[in-house]
Amino acid sequence: MTAPDDTLARLAAVIGSRRGGDPDRSYVARLFAKGTDAILKKVGEEATEVVMAGKDGEREKIVAEMADLWFHCLVTLSQFGLAPDDVLAELRRREGLSGLEEFALRKVREREAGSA
Amino acid sequence: MTAPDDTLARLAAVIGSRRGGDPDRSYVARLFAKGTDAILKKVGEEATEVVMAGKDGEREKIVAEMADLWFHCLVTLSQFGLAPDDVLAELRRREGLSGLEEFALRKVREREAGSA
Amino acid sequence: MTAPDDTLARLAAVIGSRRGGDPDRSYVARLFAKGTDAILKKVGEEATEVVMAGKDGEREKIVAEMADLWFHCLVTLSQFGLAPDDVLAELRRREGLSGLEEFALRKVREREAGSA
Amino acid sequence: MTAPDDTLARLAAVIGSRRGGDPDRSYVARLFAKGTDAILKKVGEEATEVVMAGKDGEREKIVAEMADLWFHCLVTLSQFGLAPDDVLAELRRREGLSGLEEFALRKVREREAGSA
Repeated sequence: MTAPDDTLARLAAVIGSRRGGDPDRSYVARLFAKGTDAILKKVGEEATEVVMAGKDGEREKIVAEMADLWFHCLVTLSQFGLAPDDVLAELRRREGLSGLEEFALRKVREREAGSA
Repeated sequence: MTAPDDTLARLAAVIGSRRGGDPDRSYVARLFAKGTDAILKKVGEEATEVVMAGKDGEREKIVAEMADLWFHCLVTLSQFGLAPDDVLAELRRREGLSGLEEFALRKVREREAGSA
Repeated sequence: MTAPDDTLARLAAVIGSRRGGDPDRSYVARLFAKGTDAILKKVGEEATEVVMAGKDGEREKIVAEMADLWFHCLVTLSQFGLAPDDVLAELRRREGLSGLEEFALRKVREREAGSA
Repeated sequence: MTAPDDTLARLAAVIGSRRGGDPDRSYVARLFAKGTDAILKKVGEEATEVVMAGKDGEREKIVAEMADLWFHCLVTLSQFGLAPDDVLAELRRREGLSGLEEFALRKVREREAGSA
């Protein structure tokens, strides 16, 4: 389907390079300079905008607002010394667990069927 | 740095396959059955949890809550017939624009410096 | 305890009087001019700030942020032709229901006790 | 207009009386038992619901969701040993400031007009 993609990793690298940069020249440097509360506030704000775009059901707006949300998620991760792959790894881990769960569930069902 | 990754695309495919599935067997099928409001509500909820984890400054919790948030973002995208790559493409487009912006800004500054 | 209070009603009257006012002279007139999305966005933003103040556990900050949140709730109500008392009436109605619920619950318990 | 009202103060008293109560008999006692994070999470959730109701433009829904939001605001205040009147006092204080501001602004304008 979609080919492997490094957009998030590349964007995270750009964001990381703005740490300690000139707040007057870079939006992200300014956010870092303001600190954790300002960054987290943006996550809350952008999530609200995703919700409103979703209520409007306008696909382009949903994409634009979700891009804003993900962008500020990457800034948040950077603020805590984390990388997008930490989140992706957690998602992969759950995907694996879910596979295991389904496997376990199937075994339980087979056993129940056998004993019936 | 991080290698190209298809976690989001793969997860989106799994999520998409749950549409119309049995709400009693799949959390995602249940969310789809409840509809847009229930899905968007989760985006708002998980964003609040990311903010709270950020205030706690606990990195593992931040990763876990952001995984929840991104997961429900993927469900939202699927609900509107969108894919993670639509958002990633928007982020790439902005990255390019930002490069152009910086280039333009440099040109302006050089011109100003020259005319000074 | 606290005496009857008309702060919300009075504030709602002030807010209502700003509708259609000069956006350059009044913050509230500007919000009304921007429209529903701008108003609702503020509700989301201020709620996030209440959550962050609560995580900090700083009482003065909680009060200040909650005042911001309630203020924008009043703007929201005004935007939809509603008054604070519509919300207070709903809260009173539930209080009454809860009283009825407790009464009903007590009756059920007495019956159960009697039949035991 | 609307008569003085003690709904918030009365509700806050009921909420306060649930502290330390049986979590199996009272929703509020259960929230208090879960602690600050659970309470703040509800504020975030209910604010999202107000935003969604506002997008739907359904007045009854807006009133119901805002009642939920205010209710959980009162629980938050109680959790931090605060009362609704602390927030109302802050709103009154700002109203006064705004009055002073407008008075000051009028004086400035009169002076400017006089000196013109």
